[in-house]
Amino acid sequence: MSAERYAYLGPEATFTEAALLQYLDSHGLRSNASTQPMRNGAAALEAVLDGDCLAAVVPIENSIEGGVPATIDALTDHGQLQIIAEVVVPVRFVLAVKPGTDPSTLTSFGSHPHGEAQVRTFMAANFPDAVYLPTSSTAAAARDLANDAADHVAAVCPALAAERYGLEVLANDIGERQDAETRFVVVTRPGAIPAPTGSDKTTIVASLRSDRAGALLEMLEQFSSRGVNMSRIESRPTGDGLGLYQFSIDLLGHVHEARMADALQGVHRVTRSLRFLGSYPSAVETGVPLDPTTTDDSFSAAAAWLDSTLGR
Amino acid sequence: MSAERYAYLGPEATFTEAALLQYLDSHGLRSNASTQPMRNGAAALEAVLDGDCLAAVVPIENSIEGGVPATIDALTDHGQLQIIAEVVVPVRFVLAVKPGTDPSTLTSFGSHPHGEAQVRTFMAANFPDAVYLPTSSTAAAARDLANDAADHVAAVCPALAAERYGLEVLANDIGERQDAETRFVVVTRPGAIPAPTGSDKTTIVASLRSDRAGALLEMLEQFSSRGVNMSRIESRPTGDGLGLYQFSIDLLGHVHEARMADALQGVHRVTRSLRFLGSYPSAVETGVPLDPTTTDDSFSAAAAWLDSTLGR
Amino acid sequence: MSAERYAYLGPEATFTEAALLQYLDSHGLRSNASTQPMRNGAAALEAVLDGDCLAAVVPIENSIEGGVPATIDALTDHGQLQIIAEVVVPVRFVLAVKPGTDPSTLTSFGSHPHGEAQVRTFMAANFPDAVYLPTSSTAAAARDLANDAADHVAAVCPALAAERYGLEVLANDIGERQDAETRFVVVTRPGAIPAPTGSDKTTIVASLRSDRAGALLEMLEQFSSRGVNMSRIESRPTGDGLGLYQFSIDLLGHVHEARMADALQGVHRVTRSLRFLGSYPSAVETGVPLDPTTTDDSFSAAAAWLDSTLGR
Amino acid sequence: MSAERYAYLGPEATFTEAALLQYLDSHGLRSNASTQPMRNGAAALEAVLDGDCLAAVVPIENSIEGGVPATIDALTDHGQLQIIAEVVVPVRFVLAVKPGTDPSTLTSFGSHPHGEAQVRTFMAANFPDAVYLPTSSTAAAARDLANDAADHVAAVCPALAAERYGLEVLANDIGERQDAETRFVVVTRPGAIPAPTGSDKTTIVASLRSDRAGALLEMLEQFSSRGVNMSRIESRPTGDGLGLYQFSIDLLGHVHEARMADALQGVHRVTRSLRFLGSYPSAVETGVPLDPTTTDDSFSAAAAWLDSTLGR
Repeated sequence: MSAERYAYLGPEATFTEAALLQYLDSHGLRSNASTQPMRNGAAALEAVLDGDCLAAVVPIENSIEGGVPATIDALTDHGQLQIIAEVVVPVRFVLAVKPGTDPSTLTSFGSHPHGEAQVRTFMAANFPDAVYLPTSSTAAAARDLANDAADHVAAVCPALAAERYGLEVLANDIGERQDAETRFVVVTRPGAIPAPTGSDKTTIVASLRSDRAGALLEMLEQFSSRGVNMSRIESRPTGDGLGLYQFSIDLLGHVHEARMADALQGVHRVTRSLRFLGSYPSAVETGVPLDPTTTDDSFSAAAAWLDSTLGR
Repeated sequence: MSAERYAYLGPEATFTEAALLQYLDSHGLRSNASTQPMRNGAAALEAVLDGDCLAAVVPIENSIEGGVPATIDALTDHGQLQIIAEVVVPVRFVLAVKPGTDPSTLTSFGSHPHGEAQVRTFMAANFPDAVYLPTSSTAAAARDLANDAADHVAAVCPALAAERYGLEVLANDIGERQDAETRFVVVTRPGAIPAPTGSDKTTIVASLRSDRAGALLEMLEQFSSRGVNMSRIESRPTGDGLGLYQFSIDLLGHVHEARMADALQGVHRVTRSLRFLGSYPSAVETGVPLDPTTTDDSFSAAAAWLDSTLGR
Repeated sequence: MSAERYAYLGPEATFTEAALLQYLDSHGLRSNASTQPMRNGAAALEAVLDGDCLAAVVPIENSIEGGVPATIDALTDHGQLQIIAEVVVPVRFVLAVKPGTDPSTLTSFGSHPHGEAQVRTFMAANFPDAVYLPTSSTAAAARDLANDAADHVAAVCPALAAERYGLEVLANDIGERQDAETRFVVVTRPGAIPAPTGSDKTTIVASLRSDRAGALLEMLEQFSSRGVNMSRIESRPTGDGLGLYQFSIDLLGHVHEARMADALQGVHRVTRSLRFLGSYPSAVETGVPLDPTTTDDSFSAAAAWLDSTLGR
Repeated sequence: MSAERYAYLGPEATFTEAALLQYLDSHGLRSNASTQPMRNGAAALEAVLDGDCLAAVVPIENSIEGGVPATIDALTDHGQLQIIAEVVVPVRFVLAVKPGTDPSTLTSFGSHPHGEAQVRTFMAANFPDAVYLPTSSTAAAARDLANDAADHVAAVCPALAAERYGLEVLANDIGERQDAETRFVVVTRPGAIPAPTGSDKTTIVASLRSDRAGALLEMLEQFSSRGVNMSRIESRPTGDGLGLYQFSIDLLGHVHEARMADALQGVHRVTRSLRFLGSYPSAVETGVPLDPTTTDDSFSAAAAWLDSTLGR
């Protein structure tokens, strides 16, 4: 059997590839997978849409590598794709050099500007005279260094990049926010929605009908009246005119659960547009117990009561 | 064909009989109907439940004759009855005497205490020396007067009672609140729910789960999130313990409309108990336009969207 | 010192007088008090307004004696009175006769129609042939019997009436709903509001601005956003036109508490009219713990935060 | 008089400097101002905090240059700074070369990775063979080209950078999203809050108390119950533990308006922490009319009513 192909937001050896590998490992898919870096999120999604790849991994929240609004936009525009999983990866940088490099010769270092921003304190304390040279990605800093294609003598990059390109790690975990993490999603063509696990997320994008007072609250009431909680909400201007906002929202629960199906229908009614981007297992336990008034049993009992009341 | 029997909260010739006659006339049913006064609301409802009568008329709101909480209780307890119509009757009292009575001899008058309370201003101004003698109903004051079975020489009663018992009316509309009206409901055994007319009411009785903060708001949110408005709400202690409340509620809309069916299922989930007492045409136009996000079309579109999204 | 006068909804020896005596006893006021039955609630309130009486006791909820909407109306209209206390009295009827009466001669009994409605089961089981004769109050049945001014040979009345008029009690607690109770309020001229006790109620009457969707919820949100709970709510048509409702509401808390003062100001903003009828100690513990976000300390901290933020 | 110094997120000639110049021009401050690029947002804010600069300009929403979460973090951490104005700048890229360069020799171009992402379509269509070389900012691409310090022969940069460094513009507005714009804020030391203009914004950062169901809705209800609308909301994990979210929110209105002051106190009560970042004139008209129940007059009337009710 030929390998299944997976696309990801490239280049190689970034946190996004780390997320893809983590996904493949945890699902026992790695041995039969080939991975394909793509030049941007839209290209990764198109590779899936075209059938070139089975799935794509793109960042969706809090990425040190940027690209998150772009991911949401691309998913919203490519209306036929769905999220089937999420992967959370810790954001940890290493300082890497070619093997045998004397640290005293570390006069410059390369990284993506976002990586550099994370390690200023470490570099100022330990290599105050090292000059920063920008690269197009953190992984590119490692690759170009390994290939003698760079002016810098050290790279600030993910551990995966140092390993991939045979560099020597001088220091681990040199970023300022040691608890930083990035959330990625695994996207496929439309198909079976992953079965509910009891700890799931649902991602949607909704545009409010107008900027009238309370339009946002009206939408949120659709969730609260069915006991559906949010784990993320971001407003963004739609670009279609003054005061028109689009909301990217992660919900706790699965569209195959009655409270979610009911809430989404309510949101459909009260919003200008609604895109369902997928229901998938949550990467972490949410820790919020389900209100007994919002279980599937409670919804079934209510429907049975109504049927009985109406003599159906 | 034998006449259909209708029960009503007696005695004869009260506002309740007036409501029943108004109902029969407006539905073209009077020629084939016989009417039956019952000693209280529960008895009227039992006559329907037993099959002795086709329907019963009982007061439900703002009645000058009392009996309203009792009606709600009886309807809630007789779980197999349903409201199929409402009737609104103006509450207007007349001062009636035996034909030919000289007003200067009007030294006493009879009425139910509630009737007497409404005409104190008129009586004090016009017959300051007349003594009040209580009767068990406003109609009984007229009947007993006509039958020479009373000590009073005048009756404060509905126009219907004066007419029925052949009394002469000395003064019309002598109550203090000339805009007072009582709302009655027509109750039958369970059966077909009257078809939606576009201007309907739905009556329910619900008990909150507990007196936790927000339990009432949680229930009302089930209505507001589907755009369902209330026209009446009454809280009453359930008698089952501290802080447990039961709510008697009239809603604008019909259970065959999607927003109402959806809201009632939501109320079923979040309450301790829920009784549906009926959907029926509103006696008056409600004047509140339907929000376009809450029409049946909007609900259908939302369900179709979900089906399509889930590939069903 | 001359006695302080207290008015109550008469006649003498009803549950309302029982409520007044209970109030006087529990506040150590009985020895210096004279009590004055009034012909209706409005008259009782006027006696206070005129300065003839220090306070009045009138029924406000679930009264077997009726008069509750009338009480609310009278309080709302007499805009200068305030509620300073509530009293809850169990509604228990006795069957009383003149001392020495042989029960086998009990061929008739007198009571107010509401009293008769409560004892039908008992009377049918024990005195199936006794004829009911209406009286204008349950106490009047006892008084007239004692005074030989009645046709009935037994009275269904409060224990207080049997005792007051020297009757002999044949049976106690013969009502059908043995847990029935009536709530009364003690009303005075405007003056110092009773100090908060930590378990208080506040009574208001509010009219909604219009029958627009959500007007009621908008008002209730003023309570919920400050953590203020309701213990009673009744809607009533205002009589001013279609769809205009007035709400009579009891709230848990005291107007001297910040959450209540803030919520009432919010209600004032969003309603057409608002009447504050008083803050007073609750007759029973409410049992709902106060949310820490709604304590006076929490409100003070918020105000201090804002002052500090604004450099005030 | 010596010039007032203004800091901005550098380097020179970016959209951020364009925002600062736009601010100075519109307030007639440019002739007496000197501008100071800083290496990051935190440094710009520190320059203000230290008194080195009068104000700083940093991006806050939708920036093509990144740095937005960092700005919010820095503002939240530097608890003593306040936003006094916002500036909205269109994001438009030009393709610039050294004067006289023959377009046929355009074999490479430099830009920040975010700039490159915006012009891929244009470059692929017009210069398909041009190699992309990353720079640390879009302006740096122009500066280094002008200074002969770069390998690239063209720069994708703001018009301001092309002009500043004496480059020749080959093509204007070559980005893919022609309606893109970035929102910047002007930050000062604490001091007088800009007077309300009738069209203002207020920016806050709040952390929810816990991830209990409805915690977000509870916060939003503080706004809705006072008629305060949001124009932006972003959730971000606080990093302090599972399910703890921080919300960055822009509100329509000014803290000197009663509805905003009241709502912020409510938010203070129900949240774990609250930071007020400023009230300032909105850069665009919001177009949402003020509900008459939420005007300052309405709040004043409510406070006067309460004072009168309490006899104060």
